[in-house]
Amino acid sequence: MAKKQTLGLNVKKNDNLSEWYTQVVQKAELADYSSVSGCMVLRPNSYAIWENIQKIFDSMLKKTGHKNAYFPLFIPEHLLIKEKEHVKGFAPEVAWVTHAGNTKMKERLAIRPTSETIINESYAKWVRSWRDLPLLINQWCNIVRWEFKYPKPFLRTREFLWQEGHTVHATEKEADKEVMDILSMYKDLMENYLAIPVLTGKKTEKEKFAGAVYTMALEAFMPDGKALQMGTSHMLGQNFAKAFKIKFLGKDEKYHIPWQTSWGISTRMIGAIIMVHGDDNGLIIPPKIAPIHAVIVPILFDKSKEKILKKAEEIKNKLKDYNIEIDKREEYSPGWKFHEWELKGVPLRIELGPRDLEKNQVVLVRRDTGEKNSVKIKKLNKKIKQTLDKIQKNLFTKAKSFLNKNIVEVNNWKDFLKAIKAKKIPKAFFCGEKECEDLIKFESDGATSRCIESNKEAGKCIKCNKKAKYKIYFSKSY
Amino acid sequence: MAKKQTLGLNVKKNDNLSEWYTQVVQKAELADYSSVSGCMVLRPNSYAIWENIQKIFDSMLKKTGHKNAYFPLFIPEHLLIKEKEHVKGFAPEVAWVTHAGNTKMKERLAIRPTSETIINESYAKWVRSWRDLPLLINQWCNIVRWEFKYPKPFLRTREFLWQEGHTVHATEKEADKEVMDILSMYKDLMENYLAIPVLTGKKTEKEKFAGAVYTMALEAFMPDGKALQMGTSHMLGQNFAKAFKIKFLGKDEKYHIPWQTSWGISTRMIGAIIMVHGDDNGLIIPPKIAPIHAVIVPILFDKSKEKILKKAEEIKNKLKDYNIEIDKREEYSPGWKFHEWELKGVPLRIELGPRDLEKNQVVLVRRDTGEKNSVKIKKLNKKIKQTLDKIQKNLFTKAKSFLNKNIVEVNNWKDFLKAIKAKKIPKAFFCGEKECEDLIKFESDGATSRCIESNKEAGKCIKCNKKAKYKIYFSKSY
Repeated sequence: MAKKQTLGLNVKKNDNLSEWYTQVVQKAELADYSSVSGCMVLRPNSYAIWENIQKIFDSMLKKTGHKNAYFPLFIPEHLLIKEKEHVKGFAPEVAWVTHAGNTKMKERLAIRPTSETIINESYAKWVRSWRDLPLLINQWCNIVRWEFKYPKPFLRTREFLWQEGHTVHATEKEADKEVMDILSMYKDLMENYLAIPVLTGKKTEKEKFAGAVYTMALEAFMPDGKALQMGTSHMLGQNFAKAFKIKFLGKDEKYHIPWQTSWGISTRMIGAIIMVHGDDNGLIIPPKIAPIHAVIVPILFDKSKEKILKKAEEIKNKLKDYNIEIDKREEYSPGWKFHEWELKGVPLRIELGPRDLEKNQVVLVRRDTGEKNSVKIKKLNKKIKQTLDKIQKNLFTKAKSFLNKNIVEVNNWKDFLKAIKAKKIPKAFFCGEKECEDLIKFESDGATSRCIESNKEAGKCIKCNKKAKYKIYFSKSY
Repeated sequence: MAKKQTLGLNVKKNDNLSEWYTQVVQKAELADYSSVSGCMVLRPNSYAIWENIQKIFDSMLKKTGHKNAYFPLFIPEHLLIKEKEHVKGFAPEVAWVTHAGNTKMKERLAIRPTSETIINESYAKWVRSWRDLPLLINQWCNIVRWEFKYPKPFLRTREFLWQEGHTVHATEKEADKEVMDILSMYKDLMENYLAIPVLTGKKTEKEKFAGAVYTMALEAFMPDGKALQMGTSHMLGQNFAKAFKIKFLGKDEKYHIPWQTSWGISTRMIGAIIMVHGDDNGLIIPPKIAPIHAVIVPILFDKSKEKILKKAEEIKNKLKDYNIEIDKREEYSPGWKFHEWELKGVPLRIELGPRDLEKNQVVLVRRDTGEKNSVKIKKLNKKIKQTLDKIQKNLFTKAKSFLNKNIVEVNNWKDFLKAIKAKKIPKAFFCGEKECEDLIKFESDGATSRCIESNKEAGKCIKCNKKAKYKIYFSKSY
């Protein structure tokens, strides 16, 4: 029992979110630091969540005609710099390969910070005629952005895992539609599977993707009042097509320049899951992405041990629709095990002791509320389904009401600052000018525009009082 | 129809395997070159095969208690050099990151050529007691080895995709067992799914993995008489555990050094699938790993078009256990489509014309033999299952008999050279000495030991006439 002292968290979520987060990540064995500065190890407990996210989203992609492929990790410098806005945005964070063995390379190679440039080199060869369009390709891969800000597991690491979609369309309209279709698939994933409500909308000119015509974003709200960008879907227009000389022969026998999109979500979302759903006992994993749905903790006494374990196996075999673990370890007490599985966020615990066995029942315990119920074994399958549904809904509802509570409409600069200080999300009229946005960030000690709620010209900019271009969410962010 | 001329292959497999291979890779849209020298793009047609291989093997791994994780792409130089034999083997092929943005890094970072060193850094923290063992972790990732030999898509590229397993065990016996368990899982995958027979056995001291105690290998035989190493399973002994100071507290309350294994298979196997099964019409994908099992080619005439397409949809919907594609394109003739799907290796073609419709039947065509059969639609489901099984078996049987035919037992050096010249696999007694192996390679113009068939000391070495240590397969290799 030597481990017991260090098992639980020794800080409360509301007292110090940052320290709480670090402890959950470490103690629930989600991630570990490595000796590569800013890079982390995704341990099996978090990687299994990522695998579930991949399965769900990959199936959405395939149903909508997207196919997976894999492009090189390396981007030769001459390709990276082809689209001028793009390279400006990414060059400062590029990790460069300069040597192979003892040989200096003729041209240095960027490790992909995103793959538009290497992919469009191929697309220029593959896209010939209208028959080749739309081209809908996705890749799951690792990405490197050598940021110099303070790293935080999942939320900001120099290497991370993601998917990046890159599509080519014959018309602007089709490309616009793809941007929005992907946006709603992302929203579906985040709200209905990760149980995290998101604000969606266009980014400002200042915040859009380097090289895009416009960027649609999904923003989640963290308990410390900061927004987390959960995913983005970009309309690239013809910017890359022109830079990479992509053209196609239309049905009209003339050459046209196609329209493109790109979009991505990453392991960063795991950080949001931890922050949004976790509590003072540790992680809470939404059932729909939980690698283990329920853990059976048999209460073992010498006399009834074999019977109990046999029954536990029997129960597990009956619950075929779920991933069930039996914690058979004898070197830990039931109480210790309860705490450990709570820390690791498994949605349900099934306790099975000698008295339960007599009554043909188990005790079912919800991770999110702590609620305990005795359930007859023959009714367990149905009850588990219902309870997992309830947990999934409860997590989303709680997060949604927290988000709604924190959005405040503000009409003057003083209220804006007050809202930011109170860790809320002010929604305000804004002129859309980069200079004004810079000033807002500076004077509010870090608030940035998150996404545009609506185009409304009926008001005046919260900061400069000029005519507003839209109503928009601001907040500090990760 | 402009494409027609360039669609098919213009070289026969037996006339020029290398050129045939290049054409299949390009024309079946499996891979494409990129401007990163030695790196390639896995296009959707090959990536989908890789996804199927991943699904099959990942499920085998999970059933046997292995879990997936993800470790950093980068290995700081001081870690890479910790195990002395290991670094000797890999350093010449390492791609080095030296700069981030405009900043020179303090220590250069290797891009993983394999991950023993970065993983063992974590294991040294995670392994504390016998309770933590066995530790059975796998990762699916990209790997970079900057080889200077001539690259060939799938078979030799500077970046490739693979899985690498890294396990830690309390005893030598358990680690030995893991090495062999993985070897048989690999053999199962290759023979029963990829339909490629493999020779399995230990590598010589010269050919074993850098840092291993011994290496078990799986070797396939290509039509040009060269062997292709399909996978390896390494017993690392305590070499890395000692270098990385991994130890655990045993049940006996004493510290012990654990035993380790590592093992991998890669996208290289796709190259073997192409080479082993393909024919003069292109690729042939074994049904069990085929992304598309059958393609329905409707024979469209203006009069009956709608009816035919409706029936095609109906048939597709009935064949739910299979991935079925309907080729509805009107800008290509049926004949053109037949050739294209043959080139792409889809195991079955289903032809549906007006006369078939009248008779409630289709024409089912096997990709491997070209055999055509009219099949009543109501019997199609069953017939497809049977035919796919037959194709799967036929591909394996053909490859197996080709392999068996080419293994020749030789007893003297003259016959050995004759066998190598005739593109066969000589099996011979061998002393096991590195110097002798070097000499064999030199004098035979490139033949290397592939794997040990058996330990037999009853004979004399084929080359030096000293007492043999074992009987072993030799051949040229990729």
